[in-house]
Amino acid sequence: MTVSPFDHPLLSALLGDEEASRHFSVEAEIEAALAFESALAEAQAENGIIAKDAAAAIVSGLSSFRPDTALLRAAVARDGVMVPELVRQIRMAVGALHGQKVHFGATSQDVIDTGLVLRLKSVVEHLGLLLTETVIRLTSLDERFGGRALAGVTRMQPAIPIKVADRVRAWQAPLQRHLERLSEQAKRLLVVQFGGAAGTLEKLDDKGPAVRAALAAKLGLADAPQWQSQRDALADFAGWLSLVTGSLGKFGQDVALMALGGTEIELSGGGGSSAMPHKQNPVKAEALVALARFNATQLSGMHQALVHEQERSGAAWTLEWLLLPQMAVATAASLRLAAELAGQIESLGH
Amino acid sequence: MTVSPFDHPLLSALLGDEEASRHFSVEAEIEAALAFESALAEAQAENGIIAKDAAAAIVSGLSSFRPDTALLRAAVARDGVMVPELVRQIRMAVGALHGQKVHFGATSQDVIDTGLVLRLKSVVEHLGLLLTETVIRLTSLDERFGGRALAGVTRMQPAIPIKVADRVRAWQAPLQRHLERLSEQAKRLLVVQFGGAAGTLEKLDDKGPAVRAALAAKLGLADAPQWQSQRDALADFAGWLSLVTGSLGKFGQDVALMALGGTEIELSGGGGSSAMPHKQNPVKAEALVALARFNATQLSGMHQALVHEQERSGAAWTLEWLLLPQMAVATAASLRLAAELAGQIESLGH
Amino acid sequence: MTVSPFDHPLLSALLGDEEASRHFSVEAEIEAALAFESALAEAQAENGIIAKDAAAAIVSGLSSFRPDTALLRAAVARDGVMVPELVRQIRMAVGALHGQKVHFGATSQDVIDTGLVLRLKSVVEHLGLLLTETVIRLTSLDERFGGRALAGVTRMQPAIPIKVADRVRAWQAPLQRHLERLSEQAKRLLVVQFGGAAGTLEKLDDKGPAVRAALAAKLGLADAPQWQSQRDALADFAGWLSLVTGSLGKFGQDVALMALGGTEIELSGGGGSSAMPHKQNPVKAEALVALARFNATQLSGMHQALVHEQERSGAAWTLEWLLLPQMAVATAASLRLAAELAGQIESLGH
Amino acid sequence: MTVSPFDHPLLSALLGDEEASRHFSVEAEIEAALAFESALAEAQAENGIIAKDAAAAIVSGLSSFRPDTALLRAAVARDGVMVPELVRQIRMAVGALHGQKVHFGATSQDVIDTGLVLRLKSVVEHLGLLLTETVIRLTSLDERFGGRALAGVTRMQPAIPIKVADRVRAWQAPLQRHLERLSEQAKRLLVVQFGGAAGTLEKLDDKGPAVRAALAAKLGLADAPQWQSQRDALADFAGWLSLVTGSLGKFGQDVALMALGGTEIELSGGGGSSAMPHKQNPVKAEALVALARFNATQLSGMHQALVHEQERSGAAWTLEWLLLPQMAVATAASLRLAAELAGQIESLGH
Repeated sequence: MTVSPFDHPLLSALLGDEEASRHFSVEAEIEAALAFESALAEAQAENGIIAKDAAAAIVSGLSSFRPDTALLRAAVARDGVMVPELVRQIRMAVGALHGQKVHFGATSQDVIDTGLVLRLKSVVEHLGLLLTETVIRLTSLDERFGGRALAGVTRMQPAIPIKVADRVRAWQAPLQRHLERLSEQAKRLLVVQFGGAAGTLEKLDDKGPAVRAALAAKLGLADAPQWQSQRDALADFAGWLSLVTGSLGKFGQDVALMALGGTEIELSGGGGSSAMPHKQNPVKAEALVALARFNATQLSGMHQALVHEQERSGAAWTLEWLLLPQMAVATAASLRLAAELAGQIESLGH
Repeated sequence: MTVSPFDHPLLSALLGDEEASRHFSVEAEIEAALAFESALAEAQAENGIIAKDAAAAIVSGLSSFRPDTALLRAAVARDGVMVPELVRQIRMAVGALHGQKVHFGATSQDVIDTGLVLRLKSVVEHLGLLLTETVIRLTSLDERFGGRALAGVTRMQPAIPIKVADRVRAWQAPLQRHLERLSEQAKRLLVVQFGGAAGTLEKLDDKGPAVRAALAAKLGLADAPQWQSQRDALADFAGWLSLVTGSLGKFGQDVALMALGGTEIELSGGGGSSAMPHKQNPVKAEALVALARFNATQLSGMHQALVHEQERSGAAWTLEWLLLPQMAVATAASLRLAAELAGQIESLGH
Repeated sequence: MTVSPFDHPLLSALLGDEEASRHFSVEAEIEAALAFESALAEAQAENGIIAKDAAAAIVSGLSSFRPDTALLRAAVARDGVMVPELVRQIRMAVGALHGQKVHFGATSQDVIDTGLVLRLKSVVEHLGLLLTETVIRLTSLDERFGGRALAGVTRMQPAIPIKVADRVRAWQAPLQRHLERLSEQAKRLLVVQFGGAAGTLEKLDDKGPAVRAALAAKLGLADAPQWQSQRDALADFAGWLSLVTGSLGKFGQDVALMALGGTEIELSGGGGSSAMPHKQNPVKAEALVALARFNATQLSGMHQALVHEQERSGAAWTLEWLLLPQMAVATAASLRLAAELAGQIESLGH
Repeated sequence: MTVSPFDHPLLSALLGDEEASRHFSVEAEIEAALAFESALAEAQAENGIIAKDAAAAIVSGLSSFRPDTALLRAAVARDGVMVPELVRQIRMAVGALHGQKVHFGATSQDVIDTGLVLRLKSVVEHLGLLLTETVIRLTSLDERFGGRALAGVTRMQPAIPIKVADRVRAWQAPLQRHLERLSEQAKRLLVVQFGGAAGTLEKLDDKGPAVRAALAAKLGLADAPQWQSQRDALADFAGWLSLVTGSLGKFGQDVALMALGGTEIELSGGGGSSAMPHKQNPVKAEALVALARFNATQLSGMHQALVHEQERSGAAWTLEWLLLPQMAVATAASLRLAAELAGQIESLGH
């Protein structure tokens, strides 16, 4: 069953990205949830919320824990999240003596949101590397062909002569700004979520902030007050993803237009046609345009999800799950395709 | 690797629909492609385009054909569609004598688009049944509770007393209009696509229309001139999908608001919380809102894809693949959830 | 103060449409509101809800009524709609004896929604005429140049030779389907809204349906049960608007691409450049693409507005006002531009 | 003729913002264009591109210049931008001797885009002040009512008791992050655009960068290489606008839900109903939700406009004009409404 091209056995070869996808697999999600529960137990033991014995038992139990995914699946249909059932299973694995201390003072959203951020941290690193690689490939084009002539085109009409460097830099400059933006917004994005039932950490008395800081440190995230109903960092990140694919869509559109014109670009490895063997379709360039328009579409939904009711909105939260992972994978795929497409350019300009 | 909740081993239990998903699996897509090639060979033999022997060999070869999906995957990365490689494999299977008559006069888009429509035909039937079921469930609510009193609410303020029937009929009436709309648009949607390389069926001389009509008849579709760059029927269908989920999102929102108020509705089987065992979260109601906002988001992209360049736009076409299957599955899931939610309503009104 | 290009003294010359705009002016809105109140009084007198004297006084008072728009403006800021203040003003004008019978049993939404539909009726007629005109212009292109040769282009690559007729018919065929769709959906769209405070016409006892039918007849609309929280007909109409602009965006995109190539199309009257006097920019073609993408964007919001809380959602309703009028004007402008652009085509093909 | 609520004589009282609108009026646009041409002449004279006499004549001519807007309107319909005709009129006003030095080496896009940025600078200041005011109003709510009890609500179900401060801080914290984001992105947004016909400043020889830097300084903008086909700063700003309205939409939604519940909030000055005089509709709260969903909708189109063809896309550029001004005004209106709504809260919690 594969509905999304990002999961599709065939289409993901063009439109997907294996590494980005891996971070959104159920395995990665469960692994992040277990890391959360383990770090939480340790952070609470350090702060005297639970006994050191309990924490040791929890960490030990989690290290060999394997979930019953059939039960998790049934639970998601009922509860909307896997966490209540996952916690139940972990408590069973930890045993009667300390099991009740698993997930103490936490709520499902803490596990899911912090688990998401943990994986976004890896995604951000992956995208950063891909983005840098694409910048390098475009720099190489500039070095090889930058001095050649090109017919500038404005408003779909030949304008005046420009240099290849002029067009290549218009592809590259936004990418460098995107690197700058990413480092600015990462500090707001890569933060722990820990609030308990309604955001107040009511079970931790005055130890809430200390436990949260310790939890964040153990997970390699920055500390921050709970943000369970404040989704701006996620929506902003979605905007960044769409800025990246939008800029690469412009690169793809330009390459496709040059390929149509025919004499200003030479591409190796274009796509074959089942009806016209002579053709070399600019498949990667077209995919860049499609992915740009896809992310631009999804972004709207991520901003609709900002209207999050009261302390937690199941509806707005679920909407994010339907949108953000695919946007991240689309961006990784777009960056991969852009680097590959730059590598296929055999010649630019005259 | 599961990026989309519709494909996700856990989340699809809430947000997915198995039967709708099945029609978008790679197996279903290949099956539809083989049905196309088989029907095409027969239609061409009947019209004297290829020899009857060739058609028999093709039909026979296809009946036992099993694709090499690893090669298909590699081909999609290169060609943007599986068809050139699939046709190559089929020709090998049919053998040297008649293999070249496989896919004669057709192009990748004929296979992919007609293959999509074949599966949409099943999807339309499935959605029609689910929609009818939901209407019946709402009728049952009306019969059981319709005469009871409810506090009418306008602009988020108590207004005047109404009857339960008044609110239930506001949920049900749009669904009946959606059934009417579906039958109107099905006649434009469930049509064959057959145009050849650039839409002109140039290899079939004056037999093009006759072959196309025969092909359509064999596949159980209506006949129509090629529509390869005219995507209005697909965008219109996407609009219908989003009308359905939008109407059900209103139902979900109303149920969630009534559940919040607390005395006008009793729901069985609400979702559990990991922090607050006393809660009964209206999970299905929230999911209905999420799916409504999801489809409303996607619809925009399907309309962006109407701007289809010249005889075939790889970019706009690929964009549809990223959007339409998920919209269809979201709609099936929404209908399933709405029927279930209606079934969970133990009491309405006073 | 002109924020929207549709209202802008300069930009509306390109992107606007005077007649469509006129139907969305405050004058037209007030005129429709007065027509509603007048027809309501007559319908209620005919059914014995109010006295014939009262109806005569109301109709007479309305015929010379001129609203104080400064007070209406202040009221909108407070009440979110003009109707409570407008009704107060009308009652003053009608006088103490019969004034209380103005707007009897009705609510603001009845006035606003029926007033909108009244104006959409004119908009639908206007768009239908423009659409027919565009079809005729494209038919003329087909007649003049249809037999000439053109290089078919698929996936942004030259494919095989086609005829001009092949491309022109791909522009024209969707427009004919849009005419068909319009007539199908008009029967659901052009209906009266009359429900009273919470949709139940509770003040009219058993005369509600009869009064509503009479009201509809007097206004030239079809009768239908109240749909105050059921917005599917409006969202569906928005979809139709975007289908039209999407199809015309494809026409514009094709013309711009042909203009870029340079030899297959000759356009008169292209736009001038401030830097390059030699250029003939395909301004109308570009505007068609912009308007297509604009409407595709807006459509998403109209579907978000389907999630309408309970008996009336101020939020979802207000959202429609921000979107639908501009979509309608964009569509009228797009149709006008398409007809003009078709008229500028001096030559097509070889 | 008023199609957009932001321009509408009545609806703008609720949904508009006078000061923000003023920056998008045709008067402000022309004023900015004249400022550009004046500063350009001076910058070019300082760098020896044009004679000092010519610059003086241009500056003097511009100081008393009044455009013929009827001719500008006709020109926009033809050229897609007002600039070619505006430059022609300015040259006439400056006179034959120096007129040709007006707009020397510049193109329409330089005038329009730099003119937009000049006005966005004022808009950014205005929004920053409004945002600060809203933060202060929310701080005041926290100070007055923060210690009171509130029923925490998660997933549309009563959860556990929280304090009013917990909810108010969830409204306020994102706004403070938005201020941080604004200062980060302003450095990329508030920069001059100057590239000439195709972005290369080909008429200025090696003086291009120096003239551009002087032009920027005179206009109070930062200097930057031309970005005519790189629209990321505008799309990013649009994202910021939608983040702001999204966060305020959550505030509005919460207030509306509390108003529905009835005992936890007291609001003064709610909206009146034409059918139910007893009601106090939370009109401003609803408008906040509508404006949030409006901007979330528009944002998608701003990201579609990133796919900007080659050196200048008329289609993508025009699309921005249809979207960005309304987003900015919606944000100003939302901030104004949020501050007013906070001021209407007479009591929060128990």
